[in-house]
Amino acid sequence: MNVGHNCGLFGVCGSPSASRPVYMGLYALQHRGQESAGIITSDGTCFHGYKALGLVVECFDEDTLAGLTGHLAVGHNRYSTTGSTTSSNIQPLVVDIRGVPVAIAHNGNLVNARELRTGMEKQGSIFQSTMDSEVVLHLMARAGTEDIPDMIEKALHSIRGAYCLLLLTPDSVIAVRDPLGFRPLCYGHTGRDLFFSSETCGLDVVGAAYQREIMPGEMVIARDGKVTSKIIAPSERRAYCVFELIYFSRPDSVVFGVSVDAVRKALGRRLAREYPASADLVISIPDSSNAAALGYSMESGIQLELGLIRNHYVGRTFIYPTKELRDNRVRIKFNPVRELVRGKRVVVVDDSIVRGTTSKKLMQMLRGCGVKEIHLRISSPPITFPCFYGIDTPDRDELIAANCSVEEIRQYLEVDSLGYLSVEGLLGSTGLPPEDFCVACFTGDYPVKFTQAPTKLALESKRSRPRAGAKP
Amino acid sequence: MNVGHNCGLFGVCGSPSASRPVYMGLYALQHRGQESAGIITSDGTCFHGYKALGLVVECFDEDTLAGLTGHLAVGHNRYSTTGSTTSSNIQPLVVDIRGVPVAIAHNGNLVNARELRTGMEKQGSIFQSTMDSEVVLHLMARAGTEDIPDMIEKALHSIRGAYCLLLLTPDSVIAVRDPLGFRPLCYGHTGRDLFFSSETCGLDVVGAAYQREIMPGEMVIARDGKVTSKIIAPSERRAYCVFELIYFSRPDSVVFGVSVDAVRKALGRRLAREYPASADLVISIPDSSNAAALGYSMESGIQLELGLIRNHYVGRTFIYPTKELRDNRVRIKFNPVRELVRGKRVVVVDDSIVRGTTSKKLMQMLRGCGVKEIHLRISSPPITFPCFYGIDTPDRDELIAANCSVEEIRQYLEVDSLGYLSVEGLLGSTGLPPEDFCVACFTGDYPVKFTQAPTKLALESKRSRPRAGAKP
Amino acid sequence: MNVGHNCGLFGVCGSPSASRPVYMGLYALQHRGQESAGIITSDGTCFHGYKALGLVVECFDEDTLAGLTGHLAVGHNRYSTTGSTTSSNIQPLVVDIRGVPVAIAHNGNLVNARELRTGMEKQGSIFQSTMDSEVVLHLMARAGTEDIPDMIEKALHSIRGAYCLLLLTPDSVIAVRDPLGFRPLCYGHTGRDLFFSSETCGLDVVGAAYQREIMPGEMVIARDGKVTSKIIAPSERRAYCVFELIYFSRPDSVVFGVSVDAVRKALGRRLAREYPASADLVISIPDSSNAAALGYSMESGIQLELGLIRNHYVGRTFIYPTKELRDNRVRIKFNPVRELVRGKRVVVVDDSIVRGTTSKKLMQMLRGCGVKEIHLRISSPPITFPCFYGIDTPDRDELIAANCSVEEIRQYLEVDSLGYLSVEGLLGSTGLPPEDFCVACFTGDYPVKFTQAPTKLALESKRSRPRAGAKP
Amino acid sequence: MNVGHNCGLFGVCGSPSASRPVYMGLYALQHRGQESAGIITSDGTCFHGYKALGLVVECFDEDTLAGLTGHLAVGHNRYSTTGSTTSSNIQPLVVDIRGVPVAIAHNGNLVNARELRTGMEKQGSIFQSTMDSEVVLHLMARAGTEDIPDMIEKALHSIRGAYCLLLLTPDSVIAVRDPLGFRPLCYGHTGRDLFFSSETCGLDVVGAAYQREIMPGEMVIARDGKVTSKIIAPSERRAYCVFELIYFSRPDSVVFGVSVDAVRKALGRRLAREYPASADLVISIPDSSNAAALGYSMESGIQLELGLIRNHYVGRTFIYPTKELRDNRVRIKFNPVRELVRGKRVVVVDDSIVRGTTSKKLMQMLRGCGVKEIHLRISSPPITFPCFYGIDTPDRDELIAANCSVEEIRQYLEVDSLGYLSVEGLLGSTGLPPEDFCVACFTGDYPVKFTQAPTKLALESKRSRPRAGAKP
Repeated sequence: MNVGHNCGLFGVCGSPSASRPVYMGLYALQHRGQESAGIITSDGTCFHGYKALGLVVECFDEDTLAGLTGHLAVGHNRYSTTGSTTSSNIQPLVVDIRGVPVAIAHNGNLVNARELRTGMEKQGSIFQSTMDSEVVLHLMARAGTEDIPDMIEKALHSIRGAYCLLLLTPDSVIAVRDPLGFRPLCYGHTGRDLFFSSETCGLDVVGAAYQREIMPGEMVIARDGKVTSKIIAPSERRAYCVFELIYFSRPDSVVFGVSVDAVRKALGRRLAREYPASADLVISIPDSSNAAALGYSMESGIQLELGLIRNHYVGRTFIYPTKELRDNRVRIKFNPVRELVRGKRVVVVDDSIVRGTTSKKLMQMLRGCGVKEIHLRISSPPITFPCFYGIDTPDRDELIAANCSVEEIRQYLEVDSLGYLSVEGLLGSTGLPPEDFCVACFTGDYPVKFTQAPTKLALESKRSRPRAGAKP
Repeated sequence: MNVGHNCGLFGVCGSPSASRPVYMGLYALQHRGQESAGIITSDGTCFHGYKALGLVVECFDEDTLAGLTGHLAVGHNRYSTTGSTTSSNIQPLVVDIRGVPVAIAHNGNLVNARELRTGMEKQGSIFQSTMDSEVVLHLMARAGTEDIPDMIEKALHSIRGAYCLLLLTPDSVIAVRDPLGFRPLCYGHTGRDLFFSSETCGLDVVGAAYQREIMPGEMVIARDGKVTSKIIAPSERRAYCVFELIYFSRPDSVVFGVSVDAVRKALGRRLAREYPASADLVISIPDSSNAAALGYSMESGIQLELGLIRNHYVGRTFIYPTKELRDNRVRIKFNPVRELVRGKRVVVVDDSIVRGTTSKKLMQMLRGCGVKEIHLRISSPPITFPCFYGIDTPDRDELIAANCSVEEIRQYLEVDSLGYLSVEGLLGSTGLPPEDFCVACFTGDYPVKFTQAPTKLALESKRSRPRAGAKP
Repeated sequence: MNVGHNCGLFGVCGSPSASRPVYMGLYALQHRGQESAGIITSDGTCFHGYKALGLVVECFDEDTLAGLTGHLAVGHNRYSTTGSTTSSNIQPLVVDIRGVPVAIAHNGNLVNARELRTGMEKQGSIFQSTMDSEVVLHLMARAGTEDIPDMIEKALHSIRGAYCLLLLTPDSVIAVRDPLGFRPLCYGHTGRDLFFSSETCGLDVVGAAYQREIMPGEMVIARDGKVTSKIIAPSERRAYCVFELIYFSRPDSVVFGVSVDAVRKALGRRLAREYPASADLVISIPDSSNAAALGYSMESGIQLELGLIRNHYVGRTFIYPTKELRDNRVRIKFNPVRELVRGKRVVVVDDSIVRGTTSKKLMQMLRGCGVKEIHLRISSPPITFPCFYGIDTPDRDELIAANCSVEEIRQYLEVDSLGYLSVEGLLGSTGLPPEDFCVACFTGDYPVKFTQAPTKLALESKRSRPRAGAKP
Repeated sequence: MNVGHNCGLFGVCGSPSASRPVYMGLYALQHRGQESAGIITSDGTCFHGYKALGLVVECFDEDTLAGLTGHLAVGHNRYSTTGSTTSSNIQPLVVDIRGVPVAIAHNGNLVNARELRTGMEKQGSIFQSTMDSEVVLHLMARAGTEDIPDMIEKALHSIRGAYCLLLLTPDSVIAVRDPLGFRPLCYGHTGRDLFFSSETCGLDVVGAAYQREIMPGEMVIARDGKVTSKIIAPSERRAYCVFELIYFSRPDSVVFGVSVDAVRKALGRRLAREYPASADLVISIPDSSNAAALGYSMESGIQLELGLIRNHYVGRTFIYPTKELRDNRVRIKFNPVRELVRGKRVVVVDDSIVRGTTSKKLMQMLRGCGVKEIHLRISSPPITFPCFYGIDTPDRDELIAANCSVEEIRQYLEVDSLGYLSVEGLLGSTGLPPEDFCVACFTGDYPVKFTQAPTKLALESKRSRPRAGAKP
C-alpha cells in the first residue's frame, strides 16, 4: 500500500454544462491523485477555469462550477510526479498558442523533457511551470503549423515516455495515449455526449456506457458530437503498467480490458498457492488489499476476517498532535479488532511494500494486540527499481527490497513468514499476454530508454514559484 | 444503513496538553456525529474552548489546538437530535454557575426537558440554546449548593431520559450515565492520565488501556489523577440501545462489554439460519454491513464477494451537480463491480431499512448491472417506532416498516426475497441478557415513560439563533 | 487622539429588508467601534442574525444580508468596554424570555452590573456572556410580567450607569436612554420607516430626516409604523459625555443638539485665545483634530497647512514587520510633509493626550524632519480620571496627566510649549449649559456614584469563552 | 478625483528579511493601486513569492511574509491597465530564462507590445498572461546573451512607451526607467541597504534617506550593497506625467524632484487667480483636493472649511445594499456638514473631472443640503484625450470634456460657475520647465507615437484565465 499515486483525467464533449460531469468524473477518480484538482471549460470561444490545491470536493463549490460554462471540458486530479506542489503546477495548464487558447492535462512522465526544455530555452523560450507537460505545448507552438492536431502529432514525435493527454481547444477535446500504452484512458457516451476517463469508474458515475480504451499511439478528436481517430505513433510493443492492476485503479474499474477486482482475486489465489500458510484467519489491509485477501482466503480455505478497521475521516488537514503520532501514522488510520486477532495465527495480505516503515508499524500494532503468528503475504513481487513513467516511487536506496533480501525484510518486519508473489505469478494472473506489461519496478527492464536517469525532480528549477491566492 | 446518528464524548484528565488526546479521541469517534465538534479545556483556573460546524479535522488546526491549554478537557462530536444546526447549539456548552465555569457534553435525549424548561422560564430563567442539555445546567444552578457533584446529583433527580454526560469544572472531569444505561461510556488510562470515551476505539487511538464502562446511574469524578465513584441513581433495569451493536458503534469497539464485530457476525449467522437463500454470492453494503455479510457467508457457505465499492471521498461539501444526482445520491457513494454481479443470484446484507428510499435506489443500481436475483437480508428487525433516546430517526409515518408489511416492502424494493432478523434472533446474538436492551424502535415498548410525545424538535423555539463567525 | 471608543447603535422599523439600512447605518457609525458588528432582524415571528469580529464591511456579505429577512432590525458596532473580545461577547445579544425572543444592543456601561449579577447568580441564574448588558435581560426575565415594555421599565429601575439601549422584539424596536443622557441616540424617518442611530450621520447615509434625540430617561417604542414614548426614569440632571463632542462623534453629526464641527472649531478658537503661539504654521493630527486646528488657525491668523498625511489603508490586519515598527506605529499611520515643516515654527493641534506615548512618537517624528519649534495645543483639558460610563480609557496610573504636571508632560514630549484647553473653555464652547455635561475624566466628579470602583473589567470572569467558528 | 490609478513599485537590496520593508513600502504606495499586490524575494539562489488580489494588508499575513525569505525583493501594487483582473495577471511576473529565475514589476504601458507579441507568437513563443510586461521577458529571452543586464538593454531597444521596471535576479535588483521618464522611480538607503520606490513616501516609511530619482533612460543595478548605473536609452526629451503631481502621488512625496504638496497648493493659488469667485467659504473634496483647496483659500482670502467628511472604512468588499445606492456611491463615501454649508455660497475645489457623473452626484448632494451657490473649481485642465502611458482613463467618448464645452459641463453639473485651470497655469505651477511634461490627456499631443491606437485592452485575448486558489 502507499506505493504512490499518479493522476486522473476526465474530459467531456457535448454536455451543456460540461464542468458538472467533469466534477463527477474527477470525484470518481479521486484515488488517482489527491493533491490538486482543476477544470477548464470552453464555451466554443472562451475558456473558463478553476484550479486549486486539495480534494475535488474541497476545490469546487456551486458558484465555481456554475461559472465554468461551456459544453467542452477537461479536468485533472494530480499527485505530483514532476514539479513542486505549488499552484503554478496545478493542471490543466492553459496557454495561448498563436492567439488560440489550449489546455493540457497529463497523466504520466516524459523521460526526455529535461533535454528538450534546455534546448528550447537556449532558443529563447520561457517556461511558466516546472511540469514536464509544458514541454509538449512548446513543441506544439514551434511545430510550424496552425492546425492543432497537426501540432500535436509533430510535437509527440519528439517526446519519449509515458503519457495520456487530454487537450482542450476552443471547439474540441483531444485524447492521446503514448505508443506503449503505459497508463489507461478510455471513452464512453450517453447518447451523443462523449466522455473520456482514466478508468471506467469515471464513466459509471456519470451514467455513460463504456465504448473502448484509447489505443496506444492513438489520437482521438471529439468535436461537434463526432469522434475521429488516427494512429499517430504506431508501435509493436505494449507496456501496460502492471501496478494499475495491483494497486492504483479502483476494483470496480475495467482497465486494459480486464476487471481489476477479478485480477486482484486471482493474485490472491496465486499467492496462496505460491506461499501457503498454516493459520487461523486471513485479514486484509483495507481497502486496497481486500480483493487479494479474499482470493487468498478462497484458495487456501482459511477464513477471511475483518481484522483491521480503517478510519476514513482522516484527510489532508489531520493534525498529528504529538511527536509519537507523527512517527506512527498507522494508528490514526487503522485499528485492529483486538478480540478477533488475540492469540491467533494470522495471514495478513498486503498489495506491496515500498520502504517497509509503514508495514513495520502495522505489524507491531498487530503484535501489540496479542497476535500469535503473523504470515505476511504480498500480492506483488519485491519492488527493486524506481518508476520513471508517472508513479511517485522513492529512489532505489529507499526501496527496502532493493537493499535487503526477503529474509532480511522478514526479520526487519518481525513476522513469522513473508511471501511475495513471483513476477510470473503476477503476469499469469492478469489474463493478458505477459509481454504486454511494464514490470520495470520489479525487474529494472525499462521499456523506454533514457540516457541520463530522469529523476523524479529532474525539471525542478532552483526557484519556488509564487503562489497566487484569491482572498475570500 | 443511515438509521441516524447520535454523539461522541471524549474527556481527559491529567495530560499536559489535554486538547490533543481529545482531538484524537473525537477523530476516532467521528462516526458518531459529523455535524459539529467542540473542545473545552481547563488549565486549573481558566477555560479555553473552540467549537465549529464540520468534521473534527475541519474544525481544528494546529494554532487552535495550541491555544487550548490545560490538563483537563472534554470534547463532543454532534449529530443534532434536539436543537437546530447552528453554532449556538454546538456542544460542549459553557456557562458560569455562581461565578464558576462549567462545561457540559451530552449524548442522549432528555424526555422531560421541555416541561422543566417551561417551568424555569416562568421563574425568570433565560436560555441561550435550544438544546435539552442546557436544562441540566439550570437545574444545577438552582440546586441550592456550591458543590458541583452535589449540584449534578440533585439536578439529575429531576431528569428523565437517556444521557451520558461529561462535565468539566476548573479542576475536574465528571462522567455520568443515566440509570438505564442507554448509551455507552467507558474509561481507561495510560499510567496516571485518565480518558473517558463513548467507545473503546477512542481509548485505542490514544494508546490507553480500557478500564471499564461507567455503570448505569454512576457518577465518576476524575481530579488530580484520582478517580472517585458514586451511584447517584440506582436502578434494577437496564436499557442498552441495541442499535449501538447493530449499526452505530465501530466494529473494533467493545460496547456494553461485548465485541461489536463478534455481535455483528453473530447477527449475520443467525440471519442465514432464519432466512437462508439459494444464491451464488453474498455481498455487503460497505462498510456498516461488512461483518454481518461475512457472518451470513460463513453460516450459509455462500461465497462473500466485494460487489459494491464505496467512494470515501464524499464529504459534507459534495455538490450534486444535477437534479438526477440529487435524487440518487447512492450512485455517488457506491459503484457495483459489474463483471462480478452480472447474471448472478446475489444475497445482499444490509444492517437496517429506515425509509426504504436509499435501499430502493441501491437495488435498482444492482438490477441495472444485470443481477439475476436479489435476496435482501437485514441484520435487524423492522423499525416500526421512532427513538426518543438520542437517535435521529424520522417520525412513524416515514418509517416504511411502520406502514407496510414485509411483503409490501419486498415489492416496493423489487427484490426476489426479503428477510429481517427476528427480535429474538437479534437479542439472542448479543451474548447479554435479552431484558437488558431497549428495543423500543422495533416493539414500541419504551423503557422511560413520557406524558406528551417528546418529539425530536420539542425544544425548538421560534427563532433562528444568530451565527457568530470569525472572519479569516 | 485614540482616547478610546465606545459603540454604535442603529435600528430600523418598517423597511422591507431592514438589514440593509442597518448595514448602511453601522457603516456610517464605524468610527464608534471597529471590533465587531452584529445585526439581528425580526420578520414578525422569527429572528435572524449574524455577528462577527471585524469591520462592518468585513463581517457581512451579500448572502448574509439577504438571509437576514424581516422589516425590523437592530445592529451594533462594538469596542469592548466590559467583557473580553470573543464572539460570545459580540452584540446584539439574543435570548429567550418566557419563550419570546429578545435582542439587546447597548452603548454605555452599567456601574452596578457586577453586584446585580452576583445576586442573581446566587439565586440560580446562569450567564452566557461577560457583558454587563446581559444583566438587563435577566432583570427583565425576573420582572414578573409578560409585557416587554413593562419588563424594561422594571429592569431599569435597578440599573445605574450610562446606557443607550436598542431592543428588538418580534414586532417592535424599543429605544431607551439613561436618565442622565450620557450617550447620544436619535431617530429619524423616511416617510413611514423609522430609524434609530447613535449619531445623525447614520440617518444621513440612509437618507432619513432627523427627527429628534431620544430624551434622557425616555423609552421610545416603534411598532407598525407608529412611535409611542414614555419617560420611565425622569431626572433633573444631565450628564452628556463631553468627549462625544471633543473626539468620538463624526464632525458631520449633530449630537446633543449641536453641530460637532462647529463645537470643534470653537474649541480651537478658544484654545488659540487661552494659549496663543508665535509660529509660522498650524497643523492638525488628521483627521480627528482637523476642525480644532482650523479653529486655531482662524482665531490666531496663523496659516493652516496640511503638514501630516494619514495613510487610511491601515486596518486590523496590518502586520508590523519589525520590532521597531511595533514600537512606533505612528510612522505607519502618519508621514510629515518634510519640505513644508522643515525649519518652521509649528503649532500642532491635537484633541487629547491619554498615555502620552503616541504623542511623543509624533513629536519625535516631526523633530526628525527638522521642525524648528513645536507648540503643542490640546483641544481638551488634561485627562486625570478614568471613565466608567462606556469609554475605554486606561487606569489612572497610565494617564499621563494624572501623574505629571503640564510642565512635566511638556518636557516628556520635548516640545517648546504645551497648552491644554481649560474645563471652562471647553464647556463655554459647546453652546449648551455647562452643568449639563459629564466632565468626570477631567475633574473626577462622577455624576453616578458607585460603592466599589467599577473597573472596566469588573465582570470579566475567570474563563475565556469558547469561540464558535463556521468553516468556509 | 478618480481619474484612475496606475501601479506602485518597491524594491530592496540588502535587508536580511527583504520582504518586510517591501510590505511596508507597498503599504505606503497603496494609493497607486488597490487591485492586487505581490512580493517576490531571492535568497541568493531560490525565489520565493506570494501574489493575491486585494490590498497589501489583505494579501499578506505574518506566515506568508515569514516564508518570503531572502535579502533581495521586489514588490508591486497593481491597478490593471492592460490585462484582465485575474490572478495570472498579478505582478511581479516570474519566469525562467535559460534556467535562471527572473521577476519583473512594471509601472506604465508599452505602446507597441501587441505587435511585438504577435510577431513572437508566430515564431513559437507561448505567453502565460495578457500583460504587456511579459513581452519584455520574451525579448530578454531572445536577446542572444546570458548576461541579464545585456538582455534588458537589448530588449528595451525594441520597446516603446512608458515604463518603470524593477527586475529581480537571484543576486540583484535592477531598476530601469524609460527614456522620457513618464513615471517616477527613486532610490534611497539606510546605511548599506538600498531601496527603490515609485515615490519618496515609500522611502520615508522604511526610514530610508532619499538619494535621487532613477534618470530617464537609466538602468541602476543593486548587487552586494553596490550600485552601478548605465544610461541605456538616452533622450533629449522629457515627458513627466503631470497627473502624478495633480492627483496620483501622495502630497508628502517628492516626485520629479518637486514637493507634491507645494505644487498642489500652487495649482490652487493659480486657479484662484484664473477663476476667482465671490463666496463665503472654500471646501475640498477630501483628501485628494485638500492642498489645492487650501491654496485657493490662501490666494483668495476666502475661508477654508471642512465641508465634506469622508468615510475611510469603505473597502473593496462594501455591499451597496440597494439599487439607489449602487447608482449613487457618493453618499457612501462623503457626507456634507449640513449646518456649515446651508445657505452659503461655496467654492468647491476638485482635482479633475473625468466622466462627470461622480461630480454631478456630489453637486446634487451639496444642493440637497441647502447650499446657495456652488462655484466649482478644477485644479487641472479639461481632460480631452485618453492616456496610453499607464493611467486607466476611459475612452474619449466617455470623457465629458472631450464631448462638451465648459459651459455645457457647468449646465450638466448644475453649478453656478465652473473654472478649469489652464494648461499654462498648470505647467507654470510646477517649478519645472513646461516642456518636460506630458500633457497629452489635455492636448492630444502624445510624446510617443503609435501606428494603431494602443487601446487599454489591446492584449486581452479571448480567454478568461483560470484562477488558482489555495484552500484555507
